[in-house]
Amino acid sequence: MTTRTTHERSIDLRSDTVTKPSRAMREAMATADVGDDVLDGDPTLAKLQDRVADLLGVEAALWTPTGCMANTIALMHHLTRGDRFLAPVGAHVLEAELGTSAWLAGGLPAPLAHDGGPGRPSPGAVLAAAGHAGPYFGLRTSLLCLENTHNGAGGAVTPVDEHRALVAAARDAGLAVHLDGARIWHAAAALDVPVAALTAGVDTVSVCLSKGLGAPMGSVVAGSAAFVDGAWRLRKMLGGGVRQGGVIGAAGLVALDQAGDLAADHARAARLAAGLEALGWPVIAPDTNIVLVPTAAPGPLVAALLEVGVRAVPFGPGVRFVTHRDADDADIAAVLDRAASVPLPT
Amino acid sequence: MTTRTTHERSIDLRSDTVTKPSRAMREAMATADVGDDVLDGDPTLAKLQDRVADLLGVEAALWTPTGCMANTIALMHHLTRGDRFLAPVGAHVLEAELGTSAWLAGGLPAPLAHDGGPGRPSPGAVLAAAGHAGPYFGLRTSLLCLENTHNGAGGAVTPVDEHRALVAAARDAGLAVHLDGARIWHAAAALDVPVAALTAGVDTVSVCLSKGLGAPMGSVVAGSAAFVDGAWRLRKMLGGGVRQGGVIGAAGLVALDQAGDLAADHARAARLAAGLEALGWPVIAPDTNIVLVPTAAPGPLVAALLEVGVRAVPFGPGVRFVTHRDADDADIAAVLDRAASVPLPT
Amino acid sequence: MTTRTTHERSIDLRSDTVTKPSRAMREAMATADVGDDVLDGDPTLAKLQDRVADLLGVEAALWTPTGCMANTIALMHHLTRGDRFLAPVGAHVLEAELGTSAWLAGGLPAPLAHDGGPGRPSPGAVLAAAGHAGPYFGLRTSLLCLENTHNGAGGAVTPVDEHRALVAAARDAGLAVHLDGARIWHAAAALDVPVAALTAGVDTVSVCLSKGLGAPMGSVVAGSAAFVDGAWRLRKMLGGGVRQGGVIGAAGLVALDQAGDLAADHARAARLAAGLEALGWPVIAPDTNIVLVPTAAPGPLVAALLEVGVRAVPFGPGVRFVTHRDADDADIAAVLDRAASVPLPT
Amino acid sequence: MTTRTTHERSIDLRSDTVTKPSRAMREAMATADVGDDVLDGDPTLAKLQDRVADLLGVEAALWTPTGCMANTIALMHHLTRGDRFLAPVGAHVLEAELGTSAWLAGGLPAPLAHDGGPGRPSPGAVLAAAGHAGPYFGLRTSLLCLENTHNGAGGAVTPVDEHRALVAAARDAGLAVHLDGARIWHAAAALDVPVAALTAGVDTVSVCLSKGLGAPMGSVVAGSAAFVDGAWRLRKMLGGGVRQGGVIGAAGLVALDQAGDLAADHARAARLAAGLEALGWPVIAPDTNIVLVPTAAPGPLVAALLEVGVRAVPFGPGVRFVTHRDADDADIAAVLDRAASVPLPT
Repeated sequence: MTTRTTHERSIDLRSDTVTKPSRAMREAMATADVGDDVLDGDPTLAKLQDRVADLLGVEAALWTPTGCMANTIALMHHLTRGDRFLAPVGAHVLEAELGTSAWLAGGLPAPLAHDGGPGRPSPGAVLAAAGHAGPYFGLRTSLLCLENTHNGAGGAVTPVDEHRALVAAARDAGLAVHLDGARIWHAAAALDVPVAALTAGVDTVSVCLSKGLGAPMGSVVAGSAAFVDGAWRLRKMLGGGVRQGGVIGAAGLVALDQAGDLAADHARAARLAAGLEALGWPVIAPDTNIVLVPTAAPGPLVAALLEVGVRAVPFGPGVRFVTHRDADDADIAAVLDRAASVPLPT
Repeated sequence: MTTRTTHERSIDLRSDTVTKPSRAMREAMATADVGDDVLDGDPTLAKLQDRVADLLGVEAALWTPTGCMANTIALMHHLTRGDRFLAPVGAHVLEAELGTSAWLAGGLPAPLAHDGGPGRPSPGAVLAAAGHAGPYFGLRTSLLCLENTHNGAGGAVTPVDEHRALVAAARDAGLAVHLDGARIWHAAAALDVPVAALTAGVDTVSVCLSKGLGAPMGSVVAGSAAFVDGAWRLRKMLGGGVRQGGVIGAAGLVALDQAGDLAADHARAARLAAGLEALGWPVIAPDTNIVLVPTAAPGPLVAALLEVGVRAVPFGPGVRFVTHRDADDADIAAVLDRAASVPLPT
Repeated sequence: MTTRTTHERSIDLRSDTVTKPSRAMREAMATADVGDDVLDGDPTLAKLQDRVADLLGVEAALWTPTGCMANTIALMHHLTRGDRFLAPVGAHVLEAELGTSAWLAGGLPAPLAHDGGPGRPSPGAVLAAAGHAGPYFGLRTSLLCLENTHNGAGGAVTPVDEHRALVAAARDAGLAVHLDGARIWHAAAALDVPVAALTAGVDTVSVCLSKGLGAPMGSVVAGSAAFVDGAWRLRKMLGGGVRQGGVIGAAGLVALDQAGDLAADHARAARLAAGLEALGWPVIAPDTNIVLVPTAAPGPLVAALLEVGVRAVPFGPGVRFVTHRDADDADIAAVLDRAASVPLPT
Repeated sequence: MTTRTTHERSIDLRSDTVTKPSRAMREAMATADVGDDVLDGDPTLAKLQDRVADLLGVEAALWTPTGCMANTIALMHHLTRGDRFLAPVGAHVLEAELGTSAWLAGGLPAPLAHDGGPGRPSPGAVLAAAGHAGPYFGLRTSLLCLENTHNGAGGAVTPVDEHRALVAAARDAGLAVHLDGARIWHAAAALDVPVAALTAGVDTVSVCLSKGLGAPMGSVVAGSAAFVDGAWRLRKMLGGGVRQGGVIGAAGLVALDQAGDLAADHARAARLAAGLEALGWPVIAPDTNIVLVPTAAPGPLVAALLEVGVRAVPFGPGVRFVTHRDADDADIAAVLDRAASVPLPT
């Protein structure tokens, strides 16, 4: 494995995954009631799953070690070999999950342009792409996979009405709908709506507890009770059936309590974007907690930032900063201060 | 299965796959020298394979029952789970092979726009798309899959220089190259160059004997001797290892003799396109033997044509006509005559 | 590929796949009525499929290029990832099809001992093996795969009553049943019963036209009309959807006419076995057209036979001879004559 | 999902997976130093991985959420489609991992009888089964998968010399070797040898931290540095790449400290077996911490035990009891006391 070093005293805005478990989480983990989740169900995981299902407005939910496994289980549920699925260009399931949809679920993706707004196709594009060809000529399109917020598009939010219109178009076309809601908490916070307003009509949805919410690991995939019954078996196949998972589930429950804090992260992202713009940087105005700086040379910019103690990541043709609960107002001020000494991105 | 009826006396331009084996082919089949290709090699298949390898300018070749299997073997050879491959939008391997690349070869396609010309990406787009992301974020792009002529783009020809530039870009990016040359014979005829000029630099190439060349079935996949050794095993896995295949191989040898006749098909396609245009139809000027008529309502147009004894197929947002060795000059004249009585496509 | 040479004037009993198409077949191929089987259905293939379905007593049938593809389609139909299937030790689907059941169909085989007789488990063993474990501990057993005659067991025949008892056991255990009937013609001839008596109760069955029946290539997979509908798509995925397949289908129809000749092959196998035994060789008495000679050193025996112009193959811990329509009485006499000069197998 | 209830005050010997994290583990989890294991490596996971690699005598190691994922990663590393692997009948990878080897790794298992002793084949059987058939006839055998202790055989121990002989046979046959060492700690404790003595010569090995050692979750797969580099990517594909995994890794480090306590579990298993035998029960004398009671009616026996407050599981044709750190001497005495009131197993 490659060596990975951390700059001393650097401020880490590479991802909201770098957040460390809070004191409250660690205490919850240390005192969690646990059981063998394979044999009897773990009581703390059960509590977490019930609470997430309620929040999402669906029947049932299942904890998974990662969001990648959560999405993979959903795609395996929906897709059969010879199926095509639609997803917005740059979706996490297309770019960041190593093609598991293809070789595990047997589905062939058709990436859709963001003609409906940042991070989403238009309902018309969904309808147009969903046509079924004959048995010999074409694939059977069976699924629309949405992502809200859309990471690749800079944490872009799909509003409630547009979400509903996309789901309606998928229904008209006979497609199932999966929502990659890893950062759905951010969309709900930005729109000031309940999370369930953004899952309306979907068949399955995945959410992440270890990004902005701060749990050390863990995601949840949710849908109908029948889906979760089958998902239980798929999780076992993928190697995600743990035993006393309640120790981690307890951290997830605390993470859900922290969802109310996300507005502060969004405010810091807005401040960061405004500050960088004031320095003359090109910036895409953020919807949530992700700030994208378009540049033809992401590598040198990331290196220059690292020199002054700011960590960011190359991200497509640009650089990504993510605000999170472990970076406070002073950190953002410091980032702007340090960025002032870096050559202007081009 | 759906009922499939044939209009009496209709002229069938749905595909060049409708061509029936010629008298010469049938005689060759009846007298072919054969052997058990699994045990000893079939002498006629061996002769066919050698001849195709020579034509393509590669070391070795392997007969397969279909072009779909030929492409699948190549993709299985090139791709490993977690790999991404590049192919022009609408490529046969993306649209017409039921996702086999995904679930058999484990590769995730990235469709590339036709910014290099009809049916092909630009070399710059290949380079841009080929970047390797880190182990967690992204896929490993490993293959460029070209198609010449490109069926979905209306039999569009990629010229020799552009072929070379695309291969060079792929090499610079560390990609292997597979060429779906199902209709490479048409590209060579249209450009008046040897077929080998259009396979220069590729790792693997597939060609079809049963489309314009008229064999009843059969394709060939070709490349290095090492590739063909492994392809032999992959063909067996897919269920393509036949016994006395020489009876079909004999037809393939005759088909190769017929490659010289393709210019006539191209002339007829040009005449058909000009005639339709003269009738006021929207037509994409053909490079080879495929004529596309863009229309928002392909179904009604196909139905109206069937009424008057002309068979064509819906094809994306349009209708496709394909000229072939079983449709002569009189047939083309008759098609134009009959098309005159059909409502103008919109 | 390795060089494969044929001994001059040798008598080839390696397999019944070495049979060459008869004059009648070649004539039928040269005059066959054909069509594009992908677009409209090929009339000769349709006729062949209907005739096989009738012979097998099932609703519908589908031609495939090979028996390997026929079995793979059936296993893909029956099995889902996480399924276990039962098959007798040494079954063709376990040993001679390169594990396609595993990686294409996603099923895990459980080989069953031949405690019911040569080439077959007992009904009790099927019941015992079919238990379903819980979702975490065990696999879901879903299929019994039979083989009649059983190649690995020396062309062993499963009689009608035992076939029925095995199917009944599978039904009691909630299993589907696939019959690999590549050589079902031999079982029917040996028992002097209609083929349909040996397919009673199965869900799917595959038969081969290119072994004892002598067609140059081709098999058929059959079952309900719904199965064949889906099989059509699976065949396309595997690359088995050919165009003017009637040229080969015509040979298949002649092959079916030749099924009546198999008793002669069986008589020759019996004569061969008796003759070898008279020479002092260890021989397993044949049920049909396969003669097995157990020996700890198959390689040297095959080499010694090759020296004297007799071709056989190593086969597990022994050597296999297969009688077929291209080896007549004089050939069998010559084989015995030549075998007399070979060192006794040990 | 089925309802899962726990008998009040019952003594749970269903599995050593029911053990709950100790106070020391919970404290370690609450204070663990953590990082983002995807981006930089988590320091506690790194420490755990280094320590396990040292114990096992191999270059490198990788944490996984479950033992199922650890084995799957190893099989995916070793197997290619068309490969066969050898494993003792009843191995965990055959029975308890839902066929992932088949559909993920593409390998076809050949179960080997336990002719070398409980839970293991003989070296001669490995050599005999490993023969490579030709490209058409047979599979390519590429891997021997051992299991020590063998769960299905009642926690049976393979001694050091026999382990070495099996590895040597595999080497002679050109096979790689994977060791499922989920309970290798028990084998080492029973033999009073270092764990590394039982991993000698293997290519890859998996070990479990959450069974007898008592961690709430987590396994480790280990081998060469090159293997672990690739395993990192495979773990991501399967959805096992967590972020601040150190919170669980800390529990794993404590679990390793507890490996010295296993002798007490073994003594309790011996006492349990002796006590049941004294009651007239059929019992297989345990090597380690697993006691098997053969019976034709496992269900009724398990139900009767549950009535009196003892939990055990049906296990093949019998019932399994597992001793573990959460069942002390008094619990074993109580189990024997309660078992006296249960009808004798038959």
